[in-house]
Formats: sequence, C-alpha cells, structure tokens
Amino acid sequence: MEVISSLDNKKIKYYSKLLLKKFRDSENLFLVEGEHLVLEAYRVGLLKEVIMSEDYEGKFDVPTTYVTYDIIKKLSNTLNPQKVIGVCKKEENKVIGNKVLLLDDIQDPGNLGTIIRSSVAFNIDTIILSNKSVDVYNDKVIRASEGMLFKINIIRDDIIKAINDLKNKDYIIYGTKVDGGTSIKDITPSDKYAIVMGNEGAGVSKEVLNLCDKYLYIPMNKDCESLNVGVATSIILFSFNK
Amino acid sequence: MEVISSLDNKKIKYYSKLLLKKFRDSENLFLVEGEHLVLEAYRVGLLKEVIMSEDYEGKFDVPTTYVTYDIIKKLSNTLNPQKVIGVCKKEENKVIGNKVLLLDDIQDPGNLGTIIRSSVAFNIDTIILSNKSVDVYNDKVIRASEGMLFKINIIRDDIIKAINDLKNKDYIIYGTKVDGGTSIKDITPSDKYAIVMGNEGAGVSKEVLNLCDKYLYIPMNKDCESLNVGVATSIILFSFNK
Repeated sequence: MEVISSLDNKKIKYYSKLLLKKFRDSENLFLVEGEHLVLEAYRVGLLKEVIMSEDYEGKFDVPTTYVTYDIIKKLSNTLNPQKVIGVCKKEENKVIGNKVLLLDDIQDPGNLGTIIRSSVAFNIDTIILSNKSVDVYNDKVIRASEGMLFKINIIRDDIIKAINDLKNKDYIIYGTKVDGGTSIKDITPSDKYAIVMGNEGAGVSKEVLNLCDKYLYIPMNKDCESLNVGVATSIILFSFNK
Repeated sequence: MEVISSLDNKKIKYYSKLLLKKFRDSENLFLVEGEHLVLEAYRVGLLKEVIMSEDYEGKFDVPTTYVTYDIIKKLSNTLNPQKVIGVCKKEENKVIGNKVLLLDDIQDPGNLGTIIRSSVAFNIDTIILSNKSVDVYNDKVIRASEGMLFKINIIRDDIIKAINDLKNKDYIIYGTKVDGGTSIKDITPSDKYAIVMGNEGAGVSKEVLNLCDKYLYIPMNKDCESLNVGVATSIILFSFNK
C-alpha cells in the first residue's frame, strides 16, 4: 500500500484546492470529513473517491488514496479531523417536488447548516440558494447540517429567475414580513409552494418581496425585534408541515 | 481627562479578570461590548460603570474610565471591538412569572444566545440554567442573544431542586421525547408551565425526564434524527405562545 506523505504530491495538491469554492465549482466536486458523512455520500451515490490515513479501519467501494494523518490535517479545517475524507460529486441543478425553500443571500454557514437540517425534518423537497449565498459545500455548512445535506435536493440559481420559473409552474410564493400578511399560526399551505427567506441583516430584498403571492409573519413579543434566521425559517417550515 | 494606556493598571487588571467565569461569579459582575448592549443594560438599571476609548463619542450617567483602543481590544474577545464596554451587575436569582424554561446542561454559547432571543419573542418569564450549563455572561452568549439578555429573567440553579420547587408551586413540567407524548401541534398549555430542554448531545437526563408531568414531541420526517437544540426549543416556545 502506497502512503502519500508529501504535500507536494500532485494528487494532494489537487484535493487541497477543493477547499476553495472556485475550484469546487469548476470541478463540480467537494470534500466531506468523517465516516458518517462519507457513508451518507456513498448511500446516495455521490461518493467518488476516499482519502484515508494509513491507520483508518474501514473500506469503501471507490478508488482510495492512503495518506499520513498530517496530510488529512491539511485537507481538513477542523483541529482534530477524523481519519477519512470523501471526494463527492455535486448533484444536478434541477428543482424537484412541490415544496421549495428559497434562500436570498444567506451568509452564515451555521445558519445554512441548521436550515438544511430543519428542511429535511419538515419535508422540503428542494432548497434554492441565491447566487450570493454562502457555498453549501463549505465545511462549516456540512458540519452544521449533521449529514442532512445528502437527504435533500439543493441547487443554486439567480433568485429572480428561479421565482419566475416557479410562478410559471403554479407554485404559490410566500414571503415574510414583520407586519402585514397572515400569522403563520393560521396558515393553510397550498399544494405547491415556495417560501422565501432573507439574509441575516437585510431580510428579503424588496424586488424579491414584490414577486411574492402571499405574506407571512411569526407572532411574537414586541420586545424582540427579530429571530435568528435559522430559527425563523424552521418555525415557518414546521408550521407548513401538515 | 485621564486616558489609561497600560495593561498593568490596577483597574484594567481587574476588568480583564471579568473575562473569566470564576471572577464574574465572585464579583457578581460581567462585561458587555458595544453601544447597543450598554444602552440596554442602562435601561434596566444594571449598568454600573463604562470603559470607553478616548475617541468614543457618547456619554453614560455612570462612572466612566477612558482608555486607549488597545486596552479596549484586551477587554474584548472580538477582532474589531466597538469603542465602549459596560460593566454590569447580575440580576437576582429568583423565579418570576408563570412561564418558565429549564435548560439541562446546554453547552454551546450560540445555542444559548439563540434560545434567550426566542424566549423573549415567545413570552417566557424566567429561564433556569442547570449548574453545568454554559455561563450566560460568556461574551458569545451575549452576542448571540442580540441584547435580549436584559429583557428576561435568567437564573442558575440545581435543576432537580428547581423542578421540585416548581412542582410544589403547581407548575406543570413538560419534557421532550423523540417518541411518545403529545405532538406539539396539539398542545394546550396549562396556565403555569415549565418546559425542560436538554443538552446538545445527550438530551434531557433520565432523572429529569422522570420528574416531568407531560411529554411532547415535534412531528418530523424520520430521515432527520434530531433538530438543532436552539431550533427545537424555539419551535416548542412558539407553539406554547398562544
């Protein structure tokens, strides 16, 4: 068994470039760390290769590269990484299902991870990320999603174009407003819907809001100006999940 | 105006020790950073002193210490701190109101901050933290709470003792279970209630769970094993808030 120990190795150089969004985009690949995520990726047929440290006890039915633990550390953003890393293919860019969540420029990786996890919990079929949103294949997003990344269809698109496409296919577009609209407690969801959630600071942009068919708010104490966007999204998805 | 520039200054040494939980506990004081939080603390009468950099434009009606921006940086855990820091008194340790949230060994500061924010939004009166929970006066908790810390009563107690005290005062204790109990969608809250939420990894301890009067679950897709604890707590509080 050949064990690569040099950072100058061509393969390792290639893999380490996958830590950069630009390279992930051009190669259509991304890395996941740890047995749990590697297994999830394998289960849905997205695992292409694995990189494991020489003393890792496990095998996967894909091309395998053995490396020293120091190399694993270089390919990971965590302090004490697990001993296996998966190289995964991205999914195709197509809306599926009747329940869609649109995210308008979400920035925080932890928030996006939480939203992915709640989306699986509450039966969303497709998440559409606006082009300026944080990259879903960012390692912090993957960690916060607790492996749920592989259980939902996630695509990236121009949000205005995406909304217009959905409207043409008879999805009802729901936006959120602090005042006005229907309380989320009284919602009767339509059969085909798309919910738009905004950015941490600015909320949903005015242009996007104008395209919405219906508006929602979460009833709350006026002492609290707003909720964390991961929490607000989760409460809305919970309420839509009948 | 005297501007302190030395880290060896007695006052500065004292303030910097407030970055440690042990010292916060013994002094019954804690630090908050930035104008927004300082103002909130002032409004509820908890602001005791302020420390500001010499070029900060603002005044508060409490004893003020002027320092260089480098000193501000030493007293802050953020990279580019705001120019004013408040020294605040902790509130008294007493349950108030009919709506109580109990947190059993919550560990992540971001989660606790999010839960405090949602608790204010959904009209909780008192949060009781178990003794092993993360310190509420930790700077990350304060930041994640978005200043809501000053709009709710938060106390720390032995959780078993706290639950027994509440039961003696006719609060109904609600616990969460993955299976069994009532769906949170069908809940009719009692007039006086306390909801117990567990730790990120282990959930609510068995001993605590056995003390509960009623059990709740959040209906969700089986593909998702669990929700983020901040999200789960927020959904339950939202559902209880009639």
